Amino acid sequence: MDKKNKSIWGTRIKGKTSSIFQKVSSSIEIDKRLFKEDILASIAHVEMLNKQKIISFKIKNKIIWGLNKIQNQIIKKKYVFNYQDEDIHMSIEKKLFELIGEDAGYIHTARSRNDQVLVDFKMWMINSNNKLIKILDQTINNFLKIAEKNIYTIMPGFTHLKNAQPISFAHYILAYVEMFSRDRQRLKNNFTNLKENPLGSGALSGTSFNIDRNFTTKKLGFKVPTSNSIDTVSNRDFVLDFLFASSVCAMHISRLAEEFIIWNSDGFRLITLNDNIVTGSSIMPQKKNPDPLEFLRGKVSNSYGNLFSMMTILKGLPLSYFKDLQDDKKIVFDTFDNLIDSIKVLNEVLKNFSVNKNEMLNLAKRGHITATDLADYLVKNLNYPFRKSYQITAKVVNYCEKNKKNLSDLSYKELKVMEPNIKEDVIKIFDLNNSVNSKKSYAGTSFENIKKMIKKYKNA
Amino acid sequence: MDKKNKSIWGTRIKGKTSSIFQKVSSSIEIDKRLFKEDILASIAHVEMLNKQKIISFKIKNKIIWGLNKIQNQIIKKKYVFNYQDEDIHMSIEKKLFELIGEDAGYIHTARSRNDQVLVDFKMWMINSNNKLIKILDQTINNFLKIAEKNIYTIMPGFTHLKNAQPISFAHYILAYVEMFSRDRQRLKNNFTNLKENPLGSGALSGTSFNIDRNFTTKKLGFKVPTSNSIDTVSNRDFVLDFLFASSVCAMHISRLAEEFIIWNSDGFRLITLNDNIVTGSSIMPQKKNPDPLEFLRGKVSNSYGNLFSMMTILKGLPLSYFKDLQDDKKIVFDTFDNLIDSIKVLNEVLKNFSVNKNEMLNLAKRGHITATDLADYLVKNLNYPFRKSYQITAKVVNYCEKNKKNLSDLSYKELKVMEPNIKEDVIKIFDLNNSVNSKKSYAGTSFENIKKMIKKYKNA
Amino acid sequence: MDKKNKSIWGTRIKGKTSSIFQKVSSSIEIDKRLFKEDILASIAHVEMLNKQKIISFKIKNKIIWGLNKIQNQIIKKKYVFNYQDEDIHMSIEKKLFELIGEDAGYIHTARSRNDQVLVDFKMWMINSNNKLIKILDQTINNFLKIAEKNIYTIMPGFTHLKNAQPISFAHYILAYVEMFSRDRQRLKNNFTNLKENPLGSGALSGTSFNIDRNFTTKKLGFKVPTSNSIDTVSNRDFVLDFLFASSVCAMHISRLAEEFIIWNSDGFRLITLNDNIVTGSSIMPQKKNPDPLEFLRGKVSNSYGNLFSMMTILKGLPLSYFKDLQDDKKIVFDTFDNLIDSIKVLNEVLKNFSVNKNEMLNLAKRGHITATDLADYLVKNLNYPFRKSYQITAKVVNYCEKNKKNLSDLSYKELKVMEPNIKEDVIKIFDLNNSVNSKKSYAGTSFENIKKMIKKYKNA
Amino acid sequence: MDKKNKSIWGTRIKGKTSSIFQKVSSSIEIDKRLFKEDILASIAHVEMLNKQKIISFKIKNKIIWGLNKIQNQIIKKKYVFNYQDEDIHMSIEKKLFELIGEDAGYIHTARSRNDQVLVDFKMWMINSNNKLIKILDQTINNFLKIAEKNIYTIMPGFTHLKNAQPISFAHYILAYVEMFSRDRQRLKNNFTNLKENPLGSGALSGTSFNIDRNFTTKKLGFKVPTSNSIDTVSNRDFVLDFLFASSVCAMHISRLAEEFIIWNSDGFRLITLNDNIVTGSSIMPQKKNPDPLEFLRGKVSNSYGNLFSMMTILKGLPLSYFKDLQDDKKIVFDTFDNLIDSIKVLNEVLKNFSVNKNEMLNLAKRGHITATDLADYLVKNLNYPFRKSYQITAKVVNYCEKNKKNLSDLSYKELKVMEPNIKEDVIKIFDLNNSVNSKKSYAGTSFENIKKMIKKYKNA
Repeated sequence: MDKKNKSIWGTRIKGKTSSIFQKVSSSIEIDKRLFKEDILASIAHVEMLNKQKIISFKIKNKIIWGLNKIQNQIIKKKYVFNYQDEDIHMSIEKKLFELIGEDAGYIHTARSRNDQVLVDFKMWMINSNNKLIKILDQTINNFLKIAEKNIYTIMPGFTHLKNAQPISFAHYILAYVEMFSRDRQRLKNNFTNLKENPLGSGALSGTSFNIDRNFTTKKLGFKVPTSNSIDTVSNRDFVLDFLFASSVCAMHISRLAEEFIIWNSDGFRLITLNDNIVTGSSIMPQKKNPDPLEFLRGKVSNSYGNLFSMMTILKGLPLSYFKDLQDDKKIVFDTFDNLIDSIKVLNEVLKNFSVNKNEMLNLAKRGHITATDLADYLVKNLNYPFRKSYQITAKVVNYCEKNKKNLSDLSYKELKVMEPNIKEDVIKIFDLNNSVNSKKSYAGTSFENIKKMIKKYKNA
Repeated sequence: MDKKNKSIWGTRIKGKTSSIFQKVSSSIEIDKRLFKEDILASIAHVEMLNKQKIISFKIKNKIIWGLNKIQNQIIKKKYVFNYQDEDIHMSIEKKLFELIGEDAGYIHTARSRNDQVLVDFKMWMINSNNKLIKILDQTINNFLKIAEKNIYTIMPGFTHLKNAQPISFAHYILAYVEMFSRDRQRLKNNFTNLKENPLGSGALSGTSFNIDRNFTTKKLGFKVPTSNSIDTVSNRDFVLDFLFASSVCAMHISRLAEEFIIWNSDGFRLITLNDNIVTGSSIMPQKKNPDPLEFLRGKVSNSYGNLFSMMTILKGLPLSYFKDLQDDKKIVFDTFDNLIDSIKVLNEVLKNFSVNKNEMLNLAKRGHITATDLADYLVKNLNYPFRKSYQITAKVVNYCEKNKKNLSDLSYKELKVMEPNIKEDVIKIFDLNNSVNSKKSYAGTSFENIKKMIKKYKNA
Repeated sequence: MDKKNKSIWGTRIKGKTSSIFQKVSSSIEIDKRLFKEDILASIAHVEMLNKQKIISFKIKNKIIWGLNKIQNQIIKKKYVFNYQDEDIHMSIEKKLFELIGEDAGYIHTARSRNDQVLVDFKMWMINSNNKLIKILDQTINNFLKIAEKNIYTIMPGFTHLKNAQPISFAHYILAYVEMFSRDRQRLKNNFTNLKENPLGSGALSGTSFNIDRNFTTKKLGFKVPTSNSIDTVSNRDFVLDFLFASSVCAMHISRLAEEFIIWNSDGFRLITLNDNIVTGSSIMPQKKNPDPLEFLRGKVSNSYGNLFSMMTILKGLPLSYFKDLQDDKKIVFDTFDNLIDSIKVLNEVLKNFSVNKNEMLNLAKRGHITATDLADYLVKNLNYPFRKSYQITAKVVNYCEKNKKNLSDLSYKELKVMEPNIKEDVIKIFDLNNSVNSKKSYAGTSFENIKKMIKKYKNA
Repeated sequence: MDKKNKSIWGTRIKGKTSSIFQKVSSSIEIDKRLFKEDILASIAHVEMLNKQKIISFKIKNKIIWGLNKIQNQIIKKKYVFNYQDEDIHMSIEKKLFELIGEDAGYIHTARSRNDQVLVDFKMWMINSNNKLIKILDQTINNFLKIAEKNIYTIMPGFTHLKNAQPISFAHYILAYVEMFSRDRQRLKNNFTNLKENPLGSGALSGTSFNIDRNFTTKKLGFKVPTSNSIDTVSNRDFVLDFLFASSVCAMHISRLAEEFIIWNSDGFRLITLNDNIVTGSSIMPQKKNPDPLEFLRGKVSNSYGNLFSMMTILKGLPLSYFKDLQDDKKIVFDTFDNLIDSIKVLNEVLKNFSVNKNEMLNLAKRGHITATDLADYLVKNLNYPFRKSYQITAKVVNYCEKNKKNLSDLSYKELKVMEPNIKEDVIKIFDLNNSVNSKKSYAGTSFENIKKMIKKYKNA
């Protein structure tokens, strides 16, 4: 076996790299995903070098010609990624030497892989953030469509998974519009850190070449150049920001998934999933399982785990660059792929389930769900302190339970026995529609409020 | 033992609550910390109720009188927090009954504990966020002072903890200004979610009372009322946002702590801690241990653990309110207390260590740290491709190592043998000051750049 | 303010310790919980020192007299824990000086706080492990009692929370006996590491005094002395082992809690919680919330978070002792307290809920839950391949669904149309009791198997 | 596009599965790794079915013939894994139909994928556990070899990364033998749970076929059949056990890596890495970076993250099987692959670094590292209380520092001034070899103890 070290550092470091280490160390299987960004950034870099008269016009053109050729080869799958080339940057540089000869040696002037990999990675993340924002727009839209169709769908609102107060199903759905809107906003906030251009920070201390960082910043779609070269190559806050935003979003999805799994059970039957999003059993012929929902619930584990991985890497890590940081890309890609798949599956679920309105209404009739309405009635009509009204209502509920009645089964007469000052109009209080529609406070479940909110979200 | 259930729900739920459950369930030892916020929010609430003609002027005043009295008692430590009162809200309501009688029963009109606890908690968090921002201002200031005094302090810049390129110690310090500035910004971003007023969301569906949420929003320092009552009582995103921002900040601290521990070792000796921040050993009489730094490094575990606790709670939790959520306060208080202590200790460290400039300089002389400067020189002066210059320099380094010399020990003659086209002015390249100052690219370690940055941060 | 450093290291380290650092650094509020273990270990230590003729009989007795006195004072709450004394070890040593004068100075011969704190901590953990094992015994017993009463209680067994196959409720309950038995075993396995005695490892390198580690090992209830002094003071594996075992146990509890919350909902109503373990609402008079179950579900977050805190501390920590490790006690105490409370609450729940047998049976009638029994019947009686039987059964289920029938509603005639070879005895297949009892494979849900298992667990 | 659902449940569930869901749902890319175990388990299963007269001899043979053929095809890479076949189990069953026709339909008699996947997975894990144990044996061996060569290599022992007491480098190395021995033991303990055979638990309730679980248990290398069918299909404790054991092991590796990175720095230079395990820089020609060590330090993040992922999945998951659990294999495979690679890299590092004995000795001369020896001397020779001896020594150290001397530079005269009772033989106390060798307590750093321990480990 050839014992020579073929890396660019082969002059300095003699002897072949340990094969197991070379295998684990090579990141090319992961970071080849950045080939477009790497080439774009290299082109911007050499254009800047030429503008600043650090390299000649001719060499610049030669390099760009070579890079474009490489890009084409990769796109057309005619490019061989060799794990011995360590990473995408080295692979492309090496290929460039094959294509244009020694002049390829000018490309790494005034830059280091430490800033190069960051510029690639941030460009990819800006792009991926935009993709997530776009698909969240669709998700929010899907929720709004469901809400619009279910303004008058009455269901029990739960606290502690027990019937609490009646709500509109649309109101429940709009809660998720709030959540995913926050997720979207979190991703947008992340652009501030993401759009600081790392290129030009060199290995860690900047460079003595007369470079123009504003040129590459503009060219590559960043807002400003980073301000401290050591921080630039050490910093992975923007990675954590992404992983955290993803985790919160995945967590929101898990909450919906959990609740839909419960509602889809034979105990609840509030929703039905279409056949194209259920799976069967290998042994039980009758089964229709809500696998996609379980997939969504479980997948939050991926975001959580990856966030904690990255936090572990950064714990107690001195400045500036260390190999430990290399896993940032594997972690981010894995989170992104899983999250975007999850959101797609979520969108599929949103389009492929039906609401069992009767079951919802029937369930809402259980659990003395309008008890608060009665207490509020007593406050409004008899001017009782709320706490007194609450106690009276508690007694009424006890009476119902003892007599196996629902609140709405009570006659005015029965009520009057328990609270002599009560008026006959109390009866309407127990009507579920009336109850829902009475919650007219801003953000409440009344129909008009829901309509107003849907309008607001649509214009957002 | 008395078997009666003395809770407000004693009418509905018969029999005494299990004592072990009552013990673990009671959160008053934790949430009594919110007493001021609870009273402020209650005052705003009853003022609004009165303005909206839901309760009378007289009752409003009576309640406010009572609440103020309670606040005084608590501040003067004349108030007994009884764990049987479950939480701070119930405790105060109960006390109010003692003070003003049945009219206390009006206070809970048109609200639920579900929105009440959130308004308290968010008010506390807004306040605490501001405290953190303020103390981070001081920290950044402390870093800037150290930077100003060390612009010309030369040290080795590290990658892989190996000498890489010479830098100014000030430049290293400014990397932390970047980090803590981002931490500050993250806390500021969190205000968007924090300043949505939950009060008025009721148990989960809003209320049928004609309340004015904008009134309490303004009164209590929020920006806007929340938009969906179900989301309001289910949402703990703002808790995660805080725990995440804290974790990143604590992680930054851990990185500094780790590096300072290394620099304080007998191997490095780059810094010396003052006697007031070292500790001794119970058995080894000579020891001066950097305990505060280890404290800071270890404390990131607190933020990380708490973040993951809260993320665990929220995983797969259906809407809306569940008892699971109650630990949010314990978790946030614990994180806040530990983080603010950590930042205080960090500030103490920053004021109580000295820089061993000679040791820094001596260490910078090791490791052929100006090799990149030589490679860059060859590019600039001989117009070689960088990659060729790099190879030549690698040979020069090998020569040095073989002959046990530093780069700066080389004579022009020796260099000329290895690279015939080299000129005599190459020698200045190996001067550390020159090397540092040559990195004039934006964000680089040159003295002028550092001065510019310090100015920029000071004006920020 | 007095500027003198009053620590034992005051001779070496001049100047008063920074007050904020002293505050955060002091662990006495946490580790005072170890006072008994500290005193026991000190007594064993000085007895050994005397046996080995390192200290005199008289001094040994004097020290032991003093230590016993201190123990009494602490038990009688006449002892002041001063946070300036740093930790329980220093506090007691200082007090000993007050009580017996300079001879107290002999106590720290041949030991360091590094091994001292570990011997205390491990003794505490051995004891606490035993407490957990004991209370898990009770829990398992409680489960067995429930199982015994519910052997013939039929309910739907769920996969994907959808009705899958009918089971005995006892069988479901015994699944938890398996889980908690594994938890108990995990705690028992941990004794191997816990029962290695750290005392005698000194600061990190052992001691030059002629000590007898086997003496203290035996005296203090350990099995063997540890084998490497550096590892001894660096090692916190036994802490992780405990936190992990706790996390798995808490996770098991969270699974039960989740399922019981679902079963307690108005959608399922399979169980009813007694009034002494439900709570009411501040606003909704009808509510009976399963707070203890939510408490149990949420508390897994405590164990998880603490495990990850400790794992964070140990990540990348060099050997040997560092201050970072000090939080181990806070973390373990917090986990232990929360876990033991959780198990107590769990035991309370197990004694205070009732099974709604009718609801269980009714739910089991939904979802064509005996479809697998039909498929198995076809295999056994018609010798069809299982996959073919499965397809036939799927058609039968489709027929039922289309005709809004349950499997058990089908007549032999209807079945014969779909599968001509079927015999009349097929009908008994749809009987739920029959179905449950037919699962006679080892570990299956048949009544006899359940009885056999209950017997087995009882004899374990 | 064909709209028919081609799954085995196509009769029950009409319409094609959503393509995005089918993509994310398919686990075949992951679980194809289990093909050997799946086939082995299926063969054992049908042998048992035949022995129990559930299927005929002829059919059994036909199935086994088919399975062996499939195995050969897979090994020879002539088998197409189609993601539409969902998982390895369905893929093989489908292929079996192609090969042997309808009789393939007998294979799934009396089993479900729920128990099938577990038997495969556990078999794989038993095997993988054994691989880890074996490679840890090698690692321990590598440590022992290093220890044997370095019994007399003196270095500073650190606490707080400050020089504490002199130790033998072999003693430091043996600390890791302790750690990895515990790791090995943890993996061995896990066999108890791993070796419970799940096959025969069916979907969740067992089976009505007269199966013999002991037969497959023996045949497949398990110890006993599991005891509760519901627990069997719900339980993933054995997965957590593995992920935890891996995390602790990876954490141990991270501690060594961190310390070696520090020792390899230009500040310490205690060790030198061979050229085959260092990497260069893209820009700094002089660099030799300890990348493998950073890789090892960073990789603990993988185990931690995956452990937390799995814990997230299990949090609050009801019984019995849910799709959420499917990620268990991806998580375990990823952890295993990364851990085994890490251990291999660690072994490579252990064989490819050299100890700079002079630097170790020189560093040990700093920091008054024999101060404890002096204190101990005073106790032994003057019979002072340790605390008094400690104070005297502290003064001696202060004197040294003031006069810029090491302890070993002190003359007997100087010492006598500070402590008049001291004898001339005190001088030998400051000899590093003497100090190390004096720590003869069990587990201490004395040379004879180290030799004894090496012998003990070798015989283990």
